[in-house]
Amino acid sequence: MNVGFIGLGIMGKPMAQNLLKAGHELKVFNRSKAVVKEMVALGAKEALTHQEAAMGVDALITMLPDSPDVKNVMIGENGVYDVAKEGLLYIDMSSILPEVSQEIGEKLKEKGVDMLDAPVSGGDLGAIKGTLAIMVGGEEEAFSRALPLFQAMGSSYVLVGPLGSGNTTKLTNNMIVAGNIAILSEALMLCKKSGTDLEKVLDAIRFGSAGSAVLDTKSPKILQGDYSPGFKIDLHMKDLRNALQTGSSLGIHMPITDLALEMYQSLHDQGLGEKDHSALFHIYEEKAT
Amino acid sequence: MNVGFIGLGIMGKPMAQNLLKAGHELKVFNRSKAVVKEMVALGAKEALTHQEAAMGVDALITMLPDSPDVKNVMIGENGVYDVAKEGLLYIDMSSILPEVSQEIGEKLKEKGVDMLDAPVSGGDLGAIKGTLAIMVGGEEEAFSRALPLFQAMGSSYVLVGPLGSGNTTKLTNNMIVAGNIAILSEALMLCKKSGTDLEKVLDAIRFGSAGSAVLDTKSPKILQGDYSPGFKIDLHMKDLRNALQTGSSLGIHMPITDLALEMYQSLHDQGLGEKDHSALFHIYEEKAT
Repeated sequence: MNVGFIGLGIMGKPMAQNLLKAGHELKVFNRSKAVVKEMVALGAKEALTHQEAAMGVDALITMLPDSPDVKNVMIGENGVYDVAKEGLLYIDMSSILPEVSQEIGEKLKEKGVDMLDAPVSGGDLGAIKGTLAIMVGGEEEAFSRALPLFQAMGSSYVLVGPLGSGNTTKLTNNMIVAGNIAILSEALMLCKKSGTDLEKVLDAIRFGSAGSAVLDTKSPKILQGDYSPGFKIDLHMKDLRNALQTGSSLGIHMPITDLALEMYQSLHDQGLGEKDHSALFHIYEEKAT
Repeated sequence: MNVGFIGLGIMGKPMAQNLLKAGHELKVFNRSKAVVKEMVALGAKEALTHQEAAMGVDALITMLPDSPDVKNVMIGENGVYDVAKEGLLYIDMSSILPEVSQEIGEKLKEKGVDMLDAPVSGGDLGAIKGTLAIMVGGEEEAFSRALPLFQAMGSSYVLVGPLGSGNTTKLTNNMIVAGNIAILSEALMLCKKSGTDLEKVLDAIRFGSAGSAVLDTKSPKILQGDYSPGFKIDLHMKDLRNALQTGSSLGIHMPITDLALEMYQSLHDQGLGEKDHSALFHIYEEKAT
């Protein structure tokens, strides 16, 4: 396919490279130009503006930091909206607020543009390997058109519901991960202070009702005190903030998410925002008397 | 082996039956006598007091509701302590406070009795099938002596550390389960209120970083609103209370455990203490506006 790609960051760049490898033609836009040159050397075309990236392509992909960035590029001043042609497939793979996905999608509908929200999980390694998990919201027909692109970037892609559902799923996922890290930290602190051998405890409970992906992947980091990322605290905070904002507009009580964000905020304020999110264990070490 | 067994409740009865099946000789004591008759019909001897259950046996097992029960039977008035003979192996399989295990163990040491704390997980089904996970604290040598008994009752048995560690491990396990249920409920409520298909969301996240035993086993119950136990709220509350008491004496900050117990307390107060612990989702339904 002929694809425009906006946002060549840590995630966007390897995703775009995997599209090239799979034989798609790419037109790329990024604010910082070094990475654009890298992509051009690999066979991509350079777009000088984000509007240009959206012109004369079958599909446009954005991979940007947060809701305001996507909104600005798509429906802001000199946004893609102004130049979008009927029949364009627009896929936002950023992790943003579900309600912002819906707002942008409704506006683009006026121009005959179909939108999918398709945030990913799997981190930079998953992006490089092309093994991302892609959570998609939108229409079945648009999803089908996007499949060749998803196949190049991910190893799983599920259409979960209407536009916005992809981001709701991502928030759900990252709320659960944060809560699971918090209670794991709390429980391991109990073991540690009681003088129990943490490795043996984990071996005893790993395959039972307390077992989880978080326990498997994060407890070794906690035991070794190795908080190299991984998934950075600052990024996780963004998701938790978006979850709380979404929950607040839906009228949901979210005490665990609140607590987890508060703990991450405290770590961020100590300059640990770039550490792996399992560093939440620090909070329990600090508060132990 | 020649085994005394005190406490033939929902868990204790099938555990004792599995010991009989494995060829051990049993002397049983229980306050309610109907179950004692049942066990006698299967070949067990009846002990008329808990002291009698401990006399002339190689090993004594207790499976009782909580710390005060075990303390009373073992070192209270007319307790086993008064009649215990040197060389007796004492295994407490109840889920109690780690510090109470240690207190009882130290006292029994005076009499030359070795104690293990060996709480289990796996529920009544695991007890019936003999597939319990047994978390053991105590000395290596006592653990070795107990192995033939553990093999008859469980499919996994791990010595995690000194006396009390078995119960610390159990508390750790059940803290994690409670926290994982709470954040799962919170996240599923977000999905539900945003109109996303819960089954599809779960399919999308199940094998990723949010995956857990709790997600696999409890989300179907939440989706169907089927809160038949399972693991009862009242029992889980006991573990959380013991965890908080232990954490408090160790000087640990335990906000998630606090929150989970508060939610369970509210369900208990509504008469739902006999429901499965996944009914915690109710709290989120109640508090949604």
